[in-house]
Amino acid sequence: MAEKTKELVESWSFLDTVESNFRPLVVIELAKGTKEETIEWFTKRIMDKKANGGAQLLIKPLVTENGVENIYLVGASHLRLLLGAETVGLVKECSDNSMRTFTYSSRKTFKDFADDNHNFLTMAECQYIIKHELENLRAKDEKMIPGYPQAKLYPGKSIVRRLLTSGILVQIFPLHDREELKKLRHSWYGRVKVGYQPLDDIRCYFGETIALYFGFLEYFTFALIPMAVIGIPYYVFAWEDYDKYVMFATFNLLWSTVILEVWKRICAILTYRWGTLLMKRQFEEPRPGFHGVLGINPVTGREEPVYSSIKRQLRIYLVSLPFVCLCLYFSLYVMMIYFDLEQWALDYHKENESNFSSLMLYVPSIIYAVVIEVMNRIYRYAAEFLTSWENHRLESSYQNHLILKVLVFNFLNCFASLFYIAFVLFDMKLLRQSLATLLITSQILNQFAESLLPYWLQKRYNRRMKKRMCSQKTDMDLSLADQVNMEKEMGTYLGTFDDYLELFLQFGYVSLFSCVYPLAAVFAVLNNITEIYSDALKMCRVYKRPFAEPTANIGVWQLAFETMSVISVVTNCILIGMSPQVDALFPDSKMDLVLTVALVEHLLLAIKFIMAFVIPDKPRDIQMKLARLEFESLEALKQQVREDKELDCFTENFCFNK
Amino acid sequence: MAEKTKELVESWSFLDTVESNFRPLVVIELAKGTKEETIEWFTKRIMDKKANGGAQLLIKPLVTENGVENIYLVGASHLRLLLGAETVGLVKECSDNSMRTFTYSSRKTFKDFADDNHNFLTMAECQYIIKHELENLRAKDEKMIPGYPQAKLYPGKSIVRRLLTSGILVQIFPLHDREELKKLRHSWYGRVKVGYQPLDDIRCYFGETIALYFGFLEYFTFALIPMAVIGIPYYVFAWEDYDKYVMFATFNLLWSTVILEVWKRICAILTYRWGTLLMKRQFEEPRPGFHGVLGINPVTGREEPVYSSIKRQLRIYLVSLPFVCLCLYFSLYVMMIYFDLEQWALDYHKENESNFSSLMLYVPSIIYAVVIEVMNRIYRYAAEFLTSWENHRLESSYQNHLILKVLVFNFLNCFASLFYIAFVLFDMKLLRQSLATLLITSQILNQFAESLLPYWLQKRYNRRMKKRMCSQKTDMDLSLADQVNMEKEMGTYLGTFDDYLELFLQFGYVSLFSCVYPLAAVFAVLNNITEIYSDALKMCRVYKRPFAEPTANIGVWQLAFETMSVISVVTNCILIGMSPQVDALFPDSKMDLVLTVALVEHLLLAIKFIMAFVIPDKPRDIQMKLARLEFESLEALKQQVREDKELDCFTENFCFNK
Repeated sequence: MAEKTKELVESWSFLDTVESNFRPLVVIELAKGTKEETIEWFTKRIMDKKANGGAQLLIKPLVTENGVENIYLVGASHLRLLLGAETVGLVKECSDNSMRTFTYSSRKTFKDFADDNHNFLTMAECQYIIKHELENLRAKDEKMIPGYPQAKLYPGKSIVRRLLTSGILVQIFPLHDREELKKLRHSWYGRVKVGYQPLDDIRCYFGETIALYFGFLEYFTFALIPMAVIGIPYYVFAWEDYDKYVMFATFNLLWSTVILEVWKRICAILTYRWGTLLMKRQFEEPRPGFHGVLGINPVTGREEPVYSSIKRQLRIYLVSLPFVCLCLYFSLYVMMIYFDLEQWALDYHKENESNFSSLMLYVPSIIYAVVIEVMNRIYRYAAEFLTSWENHRLESSYQNHLILKVLVFNFLNCFASLFYIAFVLFDMKLLRQSLATLLITSQILNQFAESLLPYWLQKRYNRRMKKRMCSQKTDMDLSLADQVNMEKEMGTYLGTFDDYLELFLQFGYVSLFSCVYPLAAVFAVLNNITEIYSDALKMCRVYKRPFAEPTANIGVWQLAFETMSVISVVTNCILIGMSPQVDALFPDSKMDLVLTVALVEHLLLAIKFIMAFVIPDKPRDIQMKLARLEFESLEALKQQVREDKELDCFTENFCFNK
Repeated sequence: MAEKTKELVESWSFLDTVESNFRPLVVIELAKGTKEETIEWFTKRIMDKKANGGAQLLIKPLVTENGVENIYLVGASHLRLLLGAETVGLVKECSDNSMRTFTYSSRKTFKDFADDNHNFLTMAECQYIIKHELENLRAKDEKMIPGYPQAKLYPGKSIVRRLLTSGILVQIFPLHDREELKKLRHSWYGRVKVGYQPLDDIRCYFGETIALYFGFLEYFTFALIPMAVIGIPYYVFAWEDYDKYVMFATFNLLWSTVILEVWKRICAILTYRWGTLLMKRQFEEPRPGFHGVLGINPVTGREEPVYSSIKRQLRIYLVSLPFVCLCLYFSLYVMMIYFDLEQWALDYHKENESNFSSLMLYVPSIIYAVVIEVMNRIYRYAAEFLTSWENHRLESSYQNHLILKVLVFNFLNCFASLFYIAFVLFDMKLLRQSLATLLITSQILNQFAESLLPYWLQKRYNRRMKKRMCSQKTDMDLSLADQVNMEKEMGTYLGTFDDYLELFLQFGYVSLFSCVYPLAAVFAVLNNITEIYSDALKMCRVYKRPFAEPTANIGVWQLAFETMSVISVVTNCILIGMSPQVDALFPDSKMDLVLTVALVEHLLLAIKFIMAFVIPDKPRDIQMKLARLEFESLEALKQQVREDKELDCFTENFCFNK
């Protein structure tokens, strides 16, 4: 048996020679002056057979006019990629339109599979597979990276992660496919058109996480349109009757619940089609930045750094929590300064009564909006530093702590002044004005800082690069070497965090005070339409291509949006209750007013929860398909058990009888 | 290959002969006058080999003094039971103290496993396996049950279910083990002692669902003790200061959240130890009562009755919903009659002022409590009928609809009068008195109707039985035939629904108005202590032994209890806000009072949700164990994929190269 296995393992060597047409997929940039022995060891490990603990990928140095520059291109044979697809557990569509986990042995049952069809896996999938294989290239008995005694290794440590943390490996990034990118750009934002984004194409090119963000952005924009449409007459006809506002707010609240529930269903449809809904969660390895003394992980039984959970808790509760509280206090302090400024501007306007002074009325709000944006960005760095210092073992736990920190601060920073105006100053006019200024300023700032500025910088840089290369070639004619050199200097896309955060705050502006400023939805819709274009531009033109990341939902953001919609029920009810029109309905007793408002609020909350409970998270046909898959796997298991049993009975019954 | 399989299948015949000492586990009672051919066919199917579509169990007719009476005893060989344990996916403890899914081939790694140790599987587990095998005995090509042309069969239909629905099979029940039962009775309630219940023994004898109920009952009783202890001084020293009540209510609210969260953890510990936390959910077959035209199930692709989902929705929304609303209205109507009676009693007392008249004050409450109990029980039948008529395909869906119907009605029926007194009449004295009467009366009624009455009836019946048998034997000497005859006449335990419902309503009495009647917790504790004993008596003495049912948690009841604790936050806040003492704190403005109360309520609710979110549902060590198991299965899968790949590469690489 052992001999047979050995023989089988030898056959892996076939893989290397199957395809000679090497297609570069991923770029590895090593630091300048990396020692020869290190490079030799690393490339050998990448190319080595699986059985020897290698990744069995193809790697070639990039040869430019200036010679070899420590840049390597990684690819893989078609067969290797198919085997890798099985390892990462990709889910693809079968010929009978059902979605199944891809296995090499059942490959013939999948749609569009043919031995010579190299487009069966999308380029993004291939790059994801290569990234996965590289990250899972683990140290065997090496104690250190050859040539760098300070870069320690231990059995099972990811080599690529150690190379990255010790600065030998500068970066790994997937290559753009200029042909595909051009097509995608054209169908995405190349022409002015009314219609949906090409989400499936985006997913094929950038992977599921990014496609899901654009899907959510588009869905959210469409979902806001009814609110915007209903909001316009309030502005045009200056409807100030609060009974109309009550209607608007009630509609808004139920609407916000419904859209969040419906999104879950749409998300399930999308991710089912993309296969990620069915993908099994992989076991999470420690994140790259995690450090600690070498110990034994109680779950895996493997040697890896261990860091005491109590120490981490102490860092969280004794340092991070007080720091966050301090920042929140500081943010409130800045807010009070803003109100002083506001008062000063008002006084100035009263004294001077000129055009200039009436313009001056908006200045404090604009300054405050800018200050908020700046504070948010500075705090973001602090939060990242702190969360990293907390030394979380898992990337997901790191992300959750970071998101929680950032969300709380951003929420307070953006909305505290509005709460103060609404519930302490009771100044609805000022509330409306502040809301409008904050919303519009932050939208403009965001669009500028996020997309247009980087785009402009990138464009200028590209022009300079081209000039330096002294070539008048168009984009399409660039050689591979030029392309790699251009792309390696591009900025790195840091994930969808900021994009979701922006949408989250926008949702807050729209829903929290919807009944005093119905026009907010209109601005949100307008912003989101340009946002789609500027984000698309950013993805296609400004940043390096990011690695695809399979995902089945928008994760913690669903919870964040739902929490916001609960808070908005409370604020809207209070705002309506405070309005003079509703006040006038209860001339005799303020008590009755407050009690009615409280009753309505509780009813709305109850309806909200019941609605969230009653609307199924997945459409019926997806549920059926999932049930069918589960049934099949149970049946297969039973079948297997039965076969095993029969085998066992055959071989063991006699012993048992003795 | 096919031949080899055939050969293997033949070897199943060994199983029958392995053990000759037949141990009866399950009793099957057929209707009197069942046709010979039916009996012959049914017993043959039960004994037939797995390969021929049989259950491969042992079956023997019960021979009494009156001859054969259509009662059959079912057992199985030790080997057959072990294979069955693998089929149902039992999880047992390994020698290294980890919990693993039992497989026959890995049986040697399990704790206490030995080929001659017939106690490796508990009797309850053996009976569960036999029940599962019997229920999964499916029709092959039979079109009907032989001898009964009207009892249609189709391929895949469970034979036992069809026999049950057509009345040929009267009942199937597991036998008591008188030796074990005696031991269990002794350690459970046989001696007066302070301490925990023998939950593990209960689980071994009655299965996980029932053990978990008793675990919850015990936990809930312990959890109530702090509230009871704090509640006593309120009664003794007649503390009527509402600041003290505020403290009590706040404590109560946080406490109720904590105990529900902690229960989840304890439940995880218990079910991990019992193995059910890790048990895979089996595919759900249609429930016995489900009917419809024969069609194709889209999930399984099998032929089975199909019933239009739209028809069911119509039945639910056009018949059940209006009916429930009508019942709710009727319940409110009865409540208004109660208040008239109450008024009449009060007037009578004012006129007469005698001892008799002051006793009369309690009469309306007592009558009302009795009426509520009666209405609850009648409604229960109606709800069961309606839910059955709605024709749900799955038992779980049937249960959920039934529980929802019953919960809503019972909640209103029991608490509507209290809400009315509290928030319409504002009569705290009456509220306290009604609460006490309702609570105590319903507790006494329940204990009586649930346990003591059936116990007494059963005892009387047993005595008559014994007299008829003209034997002076003690319980222990009873022959098997006598035991079966005695047990088959016992009542059937209908599940834990009523027991949980009782606890749920009790939790309502304790928590909804805790700040006006802190003594409720004391009564609840006293009731629950006797409840443990009377329920134990009921299980051991009154009812047939129920089949064990594996379960990982208390299911929908967790949600019900959590909902109740949210409602109780609201009611307690309002009650405290209404108290004259708190009123006095805000002499100037009622508004401030109401706003403060609303603010406090929202804060408490927020704290509640954050606490529920922060407290992990499973203790850390269970989490680690689960993570370890998941990791192992992922590794095993990877290993398997790797082996498959190597095999594939070997056999297919050449074809691929062509």
